[in-house]
Amino acid sequence: MSKPLILVTNDDGITAPGIRKLISIVNQIGDVIVVAPNSPQSGKGHAITINSTLSFEELNLDGPQKDFSCSGTPVDCVKMALDKILPRKPDLVVSGINHGANSSINVIYSGTMSAAVEAGVEGLQAIGFSLSDLKWEADFDQAEDFIKDIILKTLENPMPKGVVLNVNIPKLNKEEIKGIKVCKQANAKWEESFDERTNPHGRKYYWLSGYFNNMDESEDADETALTNGYISIVPVKFDLTAYEYMNELNSIYK
Amino acid sequence: MSKPLILVTNDDGITAPGIRKLISIVNQIGDVIVVAPNSPQSGKGHAITINSTLSFEELNLDGPQKDFSCSGTPVDCVKMALDKILPRKPDLVVSGINHGANSSINVIYSGTMSAAVEAGVEGLQAIGFSLSDLKWEADFDQAEDFIKDIILKTLENPMPKGVVLNVNIPKLNKEEIKGIKVCKQANAKWEESFDERTNPHGRKYYWLSGYFNNMDESEDADETALTNGYISIVPVKFDLTAYEYMNELNSIYK
Repeated sequence: MSKPLILVTNDDGITAPGIRKLISIVNQIGDVIVVAPNSPQSGKGHAITINSTLSFEELNLDGPQKDFSCSGTPVDCVKMALDKILPRKPDLVVSGINHGANSSINVIYSGTMSAAVEAGVEGLQAIGFSLSDLKWEADFDQAEDFIKDIILKTLENPMPKGVVLNVNIPKLNKEEIKGIKVCKQANAKWEESFDERTNPHGRKYYWLSGYFNNMDESEDADETALTNGYISIVPVKFDLTAYEYMNELNSIYK
Repeated sequence: MSKPLILVTNDDGITAPGIRKLISIVNQIGDVIVVAPNSPQSGKGHAITINSTLSFEELNLDGPQKDFSCSGTPVDCVKMALDKILPRKPDLVVSGINHGANSSINVIYSGTMSAAVEAGVEGLQAIGFSLSDLKWEADFDQAEDFIKDIILKTLENPMPKGVVLNVNIPKLNKEEIKGIKVCKQANAKWEESFDERTNPHGRKYYWLSGYFNNMDESEDADETALTNGYISIVPVKFDLTAYEYMNELNSIYK
């Protein structure tokens, strides 16, 4: 059997240690092409570039993979890769490893996960990986074996169309990680508290700030799994229809 | 009973005809505060501004509402409104009227819908409105009575937490609109085809381009309803967990 073609992207930018680690892992599994942003794109969600232009260039970086740096968002990277860069549809798209968790509601803000979702929209197998450590020099080695295991299992057990995986890894040493747990997205949100400052011209400006509020103590929530030392896997879909509310809504609009 | 407090936002910018129409409708229903982007933010999805600052200013525009122009994305606008501008939690958040449809998969790219979803994350009642006409001078008058009806019904019949509405309006005259239909998100996608050009320095650049591919002929899909002359309402949720795939995933990771 020929080697799988694997597309790698992220939202922290093509030089981030997290994506370089992920590349080193998938280089052991398949033929790898990297198409990742040329600058940090955290919090870009599912943004696409409509009102300006895009470009990409091939870089010459260490390793057997091909590296392309792209001017757009993570979702732009996936679209450019599929339309302009890859020789064929990839067998798998992996995004990350993100510097910082994308568990619970963070899935909708995350460029890392939006890239995986975009690959899912294109009918591809896709996984987003995130480590619960925001630091640039975070230790991505601890989770290597688990990430490899999840990628191999996904290649062996393809997901149905319309589903991608959101994998979050706790900031623990390898031997402290208790295992892998299939979870639901925890019910959580950010409590905003903008940081107000004044510029030299006397005008107010703001930095987005706040704290994370987990409102979900349930055993099968991803936040719970991470707190308890597990790697969480949430199957994520992009049919956002709230089917369970359709009957009631129909009775209102009958 | 006191008048409801209604927050209005959009992604086409605070001066767009679509939002000015929506403001004129909600001015008939409640006390209105507008917090909308100071520039077009189409396709920004759920992007938030992390790595730069935000600001807002009050504008003096016609009408009883208060208008605030914000430097950020639609989701930033909702966050700024709730934390810094509104005197209390609003009874309803409406977003739009978008110049162009946000049916089917467009819900994930749309700044208009992401603003509504963000309000939903905050536990608020929220509706995104979009008209299937990209033109700046689109005729938003035809749908006025329908929009008012949907807003009043939503105030009378609050949705459960975790659900917001995605309302799309066909480009038809009022008497041609057949009614309102509760729908699911159609299974559709964009087929990318980047438009390649060369800049004066000989370097290639690209415009995102492509065509819309509706793969869903089912009667209750929003695309079908729009094609048949109905206004579509899709209840949208932001718990993205693919619960229906959890059992199988558990068997893989047991």
